[in-house]
Amino acid sequence: MFIQRLSIIGVGLIGGSLARALRRAGVCGEIVGCGRNRSNLETAVELGVIDRYETVLASAVDGADMVIVAVPLGSMGGIFAAIREALSVNAVVSDVGSAKASVVEDARQYLGEHFRYFVPAHPIAGTEKSGVAASFAELFERRRVIITPLSEMDLGAYAKVSAMWKCTGADVVEMSVERHDRVLAATSHLPHLLAYSLVDTLAQMETSTEIFSFAAGGFRDFTRIASSSPRMWRDICVANQRAILEMLAHFNEDLAVLTDAVRCGDADRIEKIFGRAKAARDNFCEDKVC
Amino acid sequence: MFIQRLSIIGVGLIGGSLARALRRAGVCGEIVGCGRNRSNLETAVELGVIDRYETVLASAVDGADMVIVAVPLGSMGGIFAAIREALSVNAVVSDVGSAKASVVEDARQYLGEHFRYFVPAHPIAGTEKSGVAASFAELFERRRVIITPLSEMDLGAYAKVSAMWKCTGADVVEMSVERHDRVLAATSHLPHLLAYSLVDTLAQMETSTEIFSFAAGGFRDFTRIASSSPRMWRDICVANQRAILEMLAHFNEDLAVLTDAVRCGDADRIEKIFGRAKAARDNFCEDKVC
Repeated sequence: MFIQRLSIIGVGLIGGSLARALRRAGVCGEIVGCGRNRSNLETAVELGVIDRYETVLASAVDGADMVIVAVPLGSMGGIFAAIREALSVNAVVSDVGSAKASVVEDARQYLGEHFRYFVPAHPIAGTEKSGVAASFAELFERRRVIITPLSEMDLGAYAKVSAMWKCTGADVVEMSVERHDRVLAATSHLPHLLAYSLVDTLAQMETSTEIFSFAAGGFRDFTRIASSSPRMWRDICVANQRAILEMLAHFNEDLAVLTDAVRCGDADRIEKIFGRAKAARDNFCEDKVC
Repeated sequence: MFIQRLSIIGVGLIGGSLARALRRAGVCGEIVGCGRNRSNLETAVELGVIDRYETVLASAVDGADMVIVAVPLGSMGGIFAAIREALSVNAVVSDVGSAKASVVEDARQYLGEHFRYFVPAHPIAGTEKSGVAASFAELFERRRVIITPLSEMDLGAYAKVSAMWKCTGADVVEMSVERHDRVLAATSHLPHLLAYSLVDTLAQMETSTEIFSFAAGGFRDFTRIASSSPRMWRDICVANQRAILEMLAHFNEDLAVLTDAVRCGDADRIEKIFGRAKAARDNFCEDKVC
C-alpha cells in the first residue's frame, strides 16, 4: 500500500479507470472521489470504483497522500485554489490533462508553496466515452504516460506518481512541457478538430440525413473521436491554443497543395501524397496493433 | 445457379469478396478471374476464390453471363474497350467503382451497343487492405449496394445485378449518378483526403518519428483509411473531381470558422461546434454498430 488514501477529483473515464487499475494492483488504501455530478459519484461507489465520495473539495483531499485532478483543463485552476489549504503537508498532487503548459501555470498560481509537490502527467489513453460507467481497469495497459518534470519538483513526489502509473501497466516517459504540447497538438488535438469539423460540415448540409445513412466503416472510424466530450475538447483548444494553431496552419498548407492537385487533375502528384501518407501510416502500425 | 459463368476482372478485396460471397451462396457456376498481377491470381485459385484465371481480358469474359469489373476507376475505360468484342450477346457487365459518373461515361464510350447491358453499382463496404488475401465472404453482409440505373438499361440486366448483390447479404438501393457522387464525396472521399493529408503533414515534420510514437487509439482510427490504396484513391480524386472540390470548399469554410474561434479563444463558439458534431455523430451511431 504505497498510497494510503487516494483522492480522485473528477471520477470520469480517466479518473475512474485509474482508481480501478490501482485497486486491482492492490497498491491503494482508501479511494475517495469528488465531482460535480452526485449521481455519477453514486454510480462510482456502486461499481466499487471508489470507497466513498465527498462533494466538498476540501473534505475530499483531507488526509489524502495522493490527489489526482482529472477534470477538464478549464476547471484545474479553481480546483487547485479550492484544495490548497486542505492538503496534507506532503500530499502529492497530479493531473491527467491533455495539455500541460496551462495546468502547470494554474498549479504555480494556485497551489502556492505546495506547487513543488505537483507532478504534471498525461496518460495517452482514452476512448470517446465519458463518465465513470465507461471506465475500466485495463485502459492504461501498455499505453504511455507522459510526465513533464518541473525544476522545482520534489523528487519523492515525482517518484510516487511515476510508480503509481507503472502499477496500472503503463510505460512512463518524460518530456518537456513545450514538447508535450506540440506532440499532442499533432497526434491528438488536430485530429479531433478535423473530425469535429467534418461531422459538423456534413450535419449542416441539407441532405445530412441521407449522407449519414450512406456512411460506412471508414467514416465511422474517422469520426469516432467526434463523439468525445465537447467541454473537455473546448478546454483543450483554449489551453493549447498556440500549438494547435501552428498545427492547423501546417495542415491547411498541405491540404491546399492536395486540393490544387485535385483541381488540376494531377494524378501523379495526388498519388505521391497518398503514397507517402500510406507508407507513414503503415510504418506507424507496425509497432502497434492497428 | 442463376449465374452460369462469372468473370471477375480485378480479383482484389472487393472482387475477391464478391466471388467468395456468391460461391458461399451457391448461386454461381464457374468463376473466372483476370488481373494484372499473376501471383495474386494464383493466390486466388489457391484460396478457392476463383476456379481459374486468364491473363487476356477477351479470354476472361468468353462465355461469361456476368462480368464484374472491379479495378481502379482510371482503368475502367481500357477494360471496357478490351472486352467489348469478346462479350457474349446477353452478358451483363457491372462494376464496383466508388464514383459513378466517370464509369458510366467510360462504359457509354467503350461498350458500344453492349452499353445497355451495363449496370453501374457500388457496394458501400471495404477495408483499408488490398488484394485477394484480404477478401472475405462476409464483407457485404448488411451493407448497402447502390445501383445508379440508366435510362437505356436493360431491365433483365438490372434485375440480375440486383439479385446478385442480394445473395451477398447486402441491401440494394437505387440512386441517381449525380446524387451518388455527391453523397460519396461527403461520406467517403473527403474523409480519405483529410486522413491522407493529415498523416502526410505529420510525416513531413522533423519530429515525425517522435510524433507517431506518441499516437494513440484516436489517431489510429482516424488515420486507418490513410492506409488505403494510393492508386485507387488517386483515381477516385480524378474521377469525382467536381463533387470532391465542392465538399473540400465546404469543409475549408467551416474549418476556418473553427480556427477563428480557437484563435479568439472563443470557448462558447468552440463548444457549440463540437456539441453539434457530437450530437450528429452519436445520432449516426444509433443506427449502426459503432
